[in-house]
Amino acid sequence: MPTLGIDLGGTNARAAVVDGQGKILASAKMALTERSPEAVVESIAQAAAEAVSLAGVPVTGCGVGAAGQIPGNSGVLAVAPNLGWRNVPLGALLSARLGMPVRLVNDLAAAAWGEFNAGAGRGAPDVYVAFVGSGVGSCIIANGQLVRGSGGVAGELGHTKVIPGGRRCGCGELGCLEAYCGGHNLIGLTRELLASGRSPVLNELTAGVAERITPLTLERAAEAGDPAAVEIHSRAGKMLGMAISNMITVLNPARLILGGGVLMNCPGLRRAVVEGIQALTSNTAREGLLIAEAELGDDSGLIGAALLG
Amino acid sequence: MPTLGIDLGGTNARAAVVDGQGKILASAKMALTERSPEAVVESIAQAAAEAVSLAGVPVTGCGVGAAGQIPGNSGVLAVAPNLGWRNVPLGALLSARLGMPVRLVNDLAAAAWGEFNAGAGRGAPDVYVAFVGSGVGSCIIANGQLVRGSGGVAGELGHTKVIPGGRRCGCGELGCLEAYCGGHNLIGLTRELLASGRSPVLNELTAGVAERITPLTLERAAEAGDPAAVEIHSRAGKMLGMAISNMITVLNPARLILGGGVLMNCPGLRRAVVEGIQALTSNTAREGLLIAEAELGDDSGLIGAALLG
Repeated sequence: MPTLGIDLGGTNARAAVVDGQGKILASAKMALTERSPEAVVESIAQAAAEAVSLAGVPVTGCGVGAAGQIPGNSGVLAVAPNLGWRNVPLGALLSARLGMPVRLVNDLAAAAWGEFNAGAGRGAPDVYVAFVGSGVGSCIIANGQLVRGSGGVAGELGHTKVIPGGRRCGCGELGCLEAYCGGHNLIGLTRELLASGRSPVLNELTAGVAERITPLTLERAAEAGDPAAVEIHSRAGKMLGMAISNMITVLNPARLILGGGVLMNCPGLRRAVVEGIQALTSNTAREGLLIAEAELGDDSGLIGAALLG
Repeated sequence: MPTLGIDLGGTNARAAVVDGQGKILASAKMALTERSPEAVVESIAQAAAEAVSLAGVPVTGCGVGAAGQIPGNSGVLAVAPNLGWRNVPLGALLSARLGMPVRLVNDLAAAAWGEFNAGAGRGAPDVYVAFVGSGVGSCIIANGQLVRGSGGVAGELGHTKVIPGGRRCGCGELGCLEAYCGGHNLIGLTRELLASGRSPVLNELTAGVAERITPLTLERAAEAGDPAAVEIHSRAGKMLGMAISNMITVLNPARLILGGGVLMNCPGLRRAVVEGIQALTSNTAREGLLIAEAELGDDSGLIGAALLG
C-alpha cells in the first residue's frame, strides 16, 4: 500500500506518494511562507493533499524527514535550526491534521533509508552513508536497521574533531570536520582567501565578487594550480577521506554511499576523498567494500521518509 | 535454561555454565597444549564437560568467543593469529563434538555482549565498548543488537588511522591507533626509550632490564615526570581520547564502557582518555552519555558467549 513521504526543509515542504518499492507515484511542493508550527503543518498538509490527489490512490501512513534533532520515537523536533524551532511535537501535530500515523526522523536518516532501500544501497544489510553538502553528515544502517542513537543524534560525522582546538564550527565547538570541509565553510574559507589577495586565480574566476563563490569555485581555483586554493581543497579531501575511512574500519559495512551537493558537484574533491578512503581504510574492512554514489538525488529523503511511514 | 560459554584464547580454553541472567554457575579451564583444530576442540570439550558436571544442570546451547575474524554467522574462524589458523570451521567441529548448536563470535564481541547484558551496559540499548589491552578494539551495540559488520570485522578501532603514513602497526599498515596505544606497542615504545638512554627514570624503575617493562612502567615513569615518558604516555591518552570521542559523536550511545588490561591497570592513562572524551565529544552526543568501567573483568567473554549461545 502506498505511503506519504514528506521532506521538510527550511524553505519548502515536499510531499510524495510512494509505493512499497520506493517509486514516487506523485509529488507536490509548498513554499514555507510562515514558520510557525501551525503554518508549517498547514503547508505540509496542503502539499500532501495535492500529492495524494495527483496519485489517485489512498495512503496508509506518513513519514517525515526534517533537519534537526529528534530523540528516539518521540515525534518531537527538539532542535531545528533551519526553522528556529525548539521542542515542537511535529509528529503529533501532523498526525492530528492528516488523520494518520506519522513517523518523524532526521532528514539525513530519511535520505539514507531511501538510498538503502531503493537506491545505491539496495541488497546490502550494512551501509554507511556520508553526505557532504552545506554541512557534513552521515547515517549508519547496521543489521538492516537505522542507527539513530540514544538521543537521536547519531551520524554527526561533521562534528567529529579533526584538529583539537582548531577552527570554530557553526555548532560552536572547535576543530570539527565540518569547519574545514562543509560547503558553508569551504565558501567561507574561499572568501577569506579572495579577500586576502593571495589568489590571483580566484580573483579572475569571480571577478572579485565574493558572492559568486561556491565550493566549485574553490575546486576550479585548485585545478588551475592556485597554491592557496590547492592547500584548502586538498586538506578538505584528506580530512574527509580519513574521517570516512576510520568509520568504515570500525563499522565494516558492505557499502559506502557518498552523497550531498558538495561531493556530487565537485569531482576533484570526491576523487581525493575516495583516494583517501582507499589508502586509509584497514585492509580487512576494505575487502568486499563497494563505494557508490547516491542515486536518488533530492528524492532520497522523500522516498526514505515514505518507506519509514 | 543455562547455556555454555567458551572463551578461546591463545593459551587456554575456558568454559562456563551460565544462567539466563548472566550468572556463572560453574567454570573450568584447560591449557591448549597443542593447537591443531582437533586438539583445541578436544580441550574445549573437556573444559565444557567439567563445567557442566560441576554445575550439575543440563545446557541447551553453546556460544564461543575467539580472537579472530568470523564472517557473519559462518561459524568459521577465517583468520585467528593467536592460534595460527585460517578458515577453520570451529563452530561446526565443536557442534559435532558437543552435540549441541554452537554460535561463534569474535572475543571482543562476546565480552561486550556480556557487559551489555550483565555488566556495565545493563539497561542501555545503545552501547559502545572500547578495550585497550595488548591491542585496541571495540564493539558497537546498536538498537540492542551486536554490530558485526558485513565481513565480521566491525569494531576495529585499533586500526583506524591517527597519523597517515605513521608508525607501522602489527597488522602491517601504517599509522594505526594501536601502533601508538596498544599494550604491545606501549611496551615496545618504552623499551626503545630505555635503550635510548634518554630516560634515567625508566632505568631506575626497571634496573635497565627491558623485560620488566609493562604499560604500567611507562605510566610510572610519566608520573615521575620523565619528559620522554610523559610524551609517549600523553600522546597515547590524547589519541585514544580523540578516537573514542569521535566514535561517540557518530554513534550517540547511551553508555560508553571502557575495558581491557591496559585501561584497567593504568589509572593515569584512563584519566587522560576520559578527559579527552569529555573535551572532544560533540555536546549533543555527550548529553546523556554515561562513561562506565567494565564490571565483569575476565568473565565478560565467557558470560557474553553463553548468552549468545
